[in-house]
Amino acid sequence: MTEPSPVRRRRGRGARERILETATELFTAQGINATGMEQLTTTAGVSKRTLYLHFAGKDDLVHAYLQQLGDGLLPPEISPDLTASDARDQLLAVFEWSPKDPSVPLRGCPFLNASVEVPDPDHPVHRLAAAHKTEFARRLTGLARQAGARDPEALGEQLALVHDGAVARSTALNNADAGRCARALAVQLVDAATA
Amino acid sequence: MTEPSPVRRRRGRGARERILETATELFTAQGINATGMEQLTTTAGVSKRTLYLHFAGKDDLVHAYLQQLGDGLLPPEISPDLTASDARDQLLAVFEWSPKDPSVPLRGCPFLNASVEVPDPDHPVHRLAAAHKTEFARRLTGLARQAGARDPEALGEQLALVHDGAVARSTALNNADAGRCARALAVQLVDAATA
Repeated sequence: MTEPSPVRRRRGRGARERILETATELFTAQGINATGMEQLTTTAGVSKRTLYLHFAGKDDLVHAYLQQLGDGLLPPEISPDLTASDARDQLLAVFEWSPKDPSVPLRGCPFLNASVEVPDPDHPVHRLAAAHKTEFARRLTGLARQAGARDPEALGEQLALVHDGAVARSTALNNADAGRCARALAVQLVDAATA
Repeated sequence: MTEPSPVRRRRGRGARERILETATELFTAQGINATGMEQLTTTAGVSKRTLYLHFAGKDDLVHAYLQQLGDGLLPPEISPDLTASDARDQLLAVFEWSPKDPSVPLRGCPFLNASVEVPDPDHPVHRLAAAHKTEFARRLTGLARQAGARDPEALGEQLALVHDGAVARSTALNNADAGRCARALAVQLVDAATA
């Protein structure tokens, strides 16, 4: 084996990103189990050999696909100087679906979806999904505390429940009704918990 | 073609039931897309020919599997003489997981799961899942009206959201925490809406 040239290394990085982008598109549109390695390599324009150079197998690819999405789907970590009012805004921002991309809640949560498609609780993909949903509630609890909630754990768990309910119902119903209902309910719960 | 004998008809019904039972077990444990027709026929102890005699294909089998479960997963229809107190009990009963089978919420909602596994909104299976989740909220709205809620539509939608959030989070987290949180939140919402 010779040392890879800069060009080859650049190409290598490009392939990994292209595979992850393609996986994100296909897993989102079709689901994880309905997407085969054949279709992934063809759509990404890479050989099977290249795919297995970057990922040990499909499980590894699904894991990497979820990991790259993780941070972007979590509420922000609290900073010590966050005002109660800003914390309240950040709690409610979780229920604002981007007006630029109104279809986002309809496509569902990739972590909830993965936990349905990979039901074995000991599977690394299912465990990653569980860890994400735990962290999601933990961050909401942090914001709830900063917002002055009397019982931040309870409010954090409630808001996580309402959020995931909206995502699950939007996935099933293909409309934004549940998202609107969740936003109104979140305001009601935050107001009651901090009044 | 001769008229089927009573024995053959009985056998035929037995096979259909056995296939549906097997499908329910395997779809619940593994998911829809991870379950192949090969495994279904082997586990049910029927030939491929027998399976295709009863079901036009896998989509048809998934549809039938969901249809047989549907009524059992819905809150009761209201009767005109239902008292407000009974209606309240029936609303909250939706959040009581059976103590005989505490794993039920952990296995998730077959309709939410199907909508994840069959993401195409125009697919008959996805449409059946959407219809079920709409009917679920409609029945809660009926009970909310009978329980004396000021805005029964809002309460019905909220409770459907909380229920489905608990189911989705239980599926991801493999524990009953979300179920307990949902039950407490449901009491709070029903009390606030009927006070």
